[in-house]
Amino acid sequence: MDSEKEVNLPKLAVTLVTGLVIYFVPAPSGLTPEAWHLFAIFFAAILGIILKAMPMGSISLISIALVAFLQLLAPGKAGDSIKMALSGFNNPTIWMITIAFFISRGFIKTGLGKRIAYWFIAKLGNSTLGIAYGLTFADLCFAPATPSNTARAGGIIMPIMKSISMSMGSTPEDHASHKKVGAYLTLNSYYSNLITSGMFITATASNSMCQKFAKDLGVEISWTGWAVAALVPGLLSILLIPLILYKIYPPEIKDAKIYKAEAVKNLQELGSITKNEYFMIFAFFLLLFLWIFGATFNIDATVAALIGLSFLLMSNVLTWEDVKSEKGAWDTMVWFSALVMMAEGLSKLGFIGWFSEIIKGQVLGMPWIWAFPLIILIYYYSHYLFASATAHVAAMYTAFLAISIALGIPGKLAALMLGFCGSIFGVLTHYGHGPAPVLFGLGYVDLKDWWKMGFLFSVILLIIWMGTGALWWKILGIY
Amino acid sequence: MDSEKEVNLPKLAVTLVTGLVIYFVPAPSGLTPEAWHLFAIFFAAILGIILKAMPMGSISLISIALVAFLQLLAPGKAGDSIKMALSGFNNPTIWMITIAFFISRGFIKTGLGKRIAYWFIAKLGNSTLGIAYGLTFADLCFAPATPSNTARAGGIIMPIMKSISMSMGSTPEDHASHKKVGAYLTLNSYYSNLITSGMFITATASNSMCQKFAKDLGVEISWTGWAVAALVPGLLSILLIPLILYKIYPPEIKDAKIYKAEAVKNLQELGSITKNEYFMIFAFFLLLFLWIFGATFNIDATVAALIGLSFLLMSNVLTWEDVKSEKGAWDTMVWFSALVMMAEGLSKLGFIGWFSEIIKGQVLGMPWIWAFPLIILIYYYSHYLFASATAHVAAMYTAFLAISIALGIPGKLAALMLGFCGSIFGVLTHYGHGPAPVLFGLGYVDLKDWWKMGFLFSVILLIIWMGTGALWWKILGIY
Repeated sequence: MDSEKEVNLPKLAVTLVTGLVIYFVPAPSGLTPEAWHLFAIFFAAILGIILKAMPMGSISLISIALVAFLQLLAPGKAGDSIKMALSGFNNPTIWMITIAFFISRGFIKTGLGKRIAYWFIAKLGNSTLGIAYGLTFADLCFAPATPSNTARAGGIIMPIMKSISMSMGSTPEDHASHKKVGAYLTLNSYYSNLITSGMFITATASNSMCQKFAKDLGVEISWTGWAVAALVPGLLSILLIPLILYKIYPPEIKDAKIYKAEAVKNLQELGSITKNEYFMIFAFFLLLFLWIFGATFNIDATVAALIGLSFLLMSNVLTWEDVKSEKGAWDTMVWFSALVMMAEGLSKLGFIGWFSEIIKGQVLGMPWIWAFPLIILIYYYSHYLFASATAHVAAMYTAFLAISIALGIPGKLAALMLGFCGSIFGVLTHYGHGPAPVLFGLGYVDLKDWWKMGFLFSVILLIIWMGTGALWWKILGIY
Repeated sequence: MDSEKEVNLPKLAVTLVTGLVIYFVPAPSGLTPEAWHLFAIFFAAILGIILKAMPMGSISLISIALVAFLQLLAPGKAGDSIKMALSGFNNPTIWMITIAFFISRGFIKTGLGKRIAYWFIAKLGNSTLGIAYGLTFADLCFAPATPSNTARAGGIIMPIMKSISMSMGSTPEDHASHKKVGAYLTLNSYYSNLITSGMFITATASNSMCQKFAKDLGVEISWTGWAVAALVPGLLSILLIPLILYKIYPPEIKDAKIYKAEAVKNLQELGSITKNEYFMIFAFFLLLFLWIFGATFNIDATVAALIGLSFLLMSNVLTWEDVKSEKGAWDTMVWFSALVMMAEGLSKLGFIGWFSEIIKGQVLGMPWIWAFPLIILIYYYSHYLFASATAHVAAMYTAFLAISIALGIPGKLAALMLGFCGSIFGVLTHYGHGPAPVLFGLGYVDLKDWWKMGFLFSVILLIIWMGTGALWWKILGIY
């Protein structure tokens, strides 16, 4: 039984001691003890996850137990406290992610994923880089019309990406094969998704919140205005990021030509499309249709995913046995629910508001040309504290835009750049944006790489957006 | 792939057509279309589950999809509708059940369950009936002090019961072995738990609600008053039910003597208690302590379960791999969440209130000696519509007690008997009371048997409680 030891006692001790020290330091003035204690648990949980003191799921359950036991979210009320601590579990975004795992099982089980993968390799497979660009452009095509970037990543790109990796011998189960193709394509798909999310108001849910909040402060941004402002830094990112990642975090298989010939052969061997593949294709287009036109018919993206899954279950493409055996889905559901609950709690208990006030005190009086990058940096890197872009935007966008305007930063400039950050800051963590848990959950990229690359690319993306943006927005007359 | 077909198309068609017919029948006057449509989905879901049109989990996900898609719980609001449709997933009772599965894995994995099972068989194992009585008395001992009967069944009795069954060659995996011991002990443990739940105000959560609701209508019931009134029918049930079940639904292994000798030998072979068993024992007593004294320290029963699970994870008794692989837990979480959500929805949308009004119209003017059994029967069998005793009590207890008093039925008599029903009506279904999903989820009893025996024993229990109760309560001067 010792061979499967998952608990690293020294690291667990470091985690617990750190949490306890923060916990017993008196709360800074302006913060309630509950807010400070929740921060202690959140910080210790993230530390424990990074140190690998225990598996992420275990740490998450322990965090839920602590938040409920200490009654941080509903002081004095035992029953409400546990309900609040479990509140992540009825979060529709989390269920969208969970369902994406089930749907992607359908791509694999029917063989459709393999077929599309072979087709992709046969067409673009001169190099792994070519395949990566292919996936990135596919994401870009869907982006203006799928407001759920989680659906786009989890329901459309991920199953294909996984199938391609597997066809090239890079499987989640075989640890040694992760870096052949899978790890590179995983991060590339994630970064691409975040870039395309930033490019159109309709490419991710939080953008329209930014638009609304900006309007409340007197800054009008149209769909076209946003898209034009994002065009140059967006396209530049699309072109550069797959290449830079290819250099810094290279796939072991670079030349895919041998796979190309094989893919052509395999495609022929697969023969004609089977009944279950047709069902899967139908489900795919049904989902695509519902995700694109959902807003018109007032259908939520998670409901669309549930309808797609229901169809797959009724047509016997997926069985209930498949669903309940999909460990990755349950794993992700638990840890993401815990992090979302804690991150939402930090907002609700005023931690984020307190933090924003501190920033305000620091930057007031600064010339705007200095204050602007500082504000962006703080907004951007405070995303380590958030398990959702929407939560981050809801908690901080208005405050930071108001501070910017008060400092004399041109409103539209600040509103747009804060808006773009709302997508690209997702690169930082494996919980920072909807698609992250789905792609991280595949298992190709380990936590250390995810965070290391995340930090590196957070800098690269900031440079691209702030640097070329500054020029492009000057030309556009935004400031 | 056809060998694993889980969908029975003709039965699915019957289910869907029935649901559609109810759906398109105009809502009876006094009901909103939403309430009626939700009833159509609930009815079709239960029908589909009983017919085995599809696995329960699949039907549950489809129901959630329909409720959210049709926006029954938040008309016109797509986002709120999906949140409401997923509301079962942050229900603490459901998590208690889910966690019970994980904890019981600890009993099995450490070998402690086996050790206790051998000890039980060694001491009581002259017959399977003796073992059944032993478990029933164990439940009775804990009942006055564990207000969560789900914890009592799922965390205490079930792991031992499962270990005993497995030691006697009756395993969940081997379908042919179910009726050896496991099926009998499962139903016996369930029925015993419901009887002991009915005997003390502190033996299940809904009893104290009854006490409070009765007080609101001017009927005072003390802890002792309840226990004394329940004493005769309760003890009689405890003595008779294991025996009657033994006759009607007999275990194939009746004489356990050969297992007794083997158990003694196995106990010796097991040697001294291992470190992990000690951890498990500690977790068990920690749970017992928290469940018994939880109210004093304001600790919710689900939080207690989470603390126990956290301890097992930190001490490496259970691994995260164990947790995410526990299919039965995820299965139960999904189907129970869907049923709880729909049953709560029926209350919220006024379906239950409308139903109560109809009953009121029918019985008013009747002599109370006729009306009383009728009211009890309706209250009791309407439990088919509920996925929780607490929900049923919350929705109907006050209305039915008020009707009773209006008809001249002695208040205390009605208050007590409606109160007792709040536990024993759980026998009807596999979702009717907290312990049901845990015990049903073991897999020893198939759905048909569960419902058939449930109906049979609902009649037997009613006869015991109403029959001997009538005499005993006369003697006590309650009416």
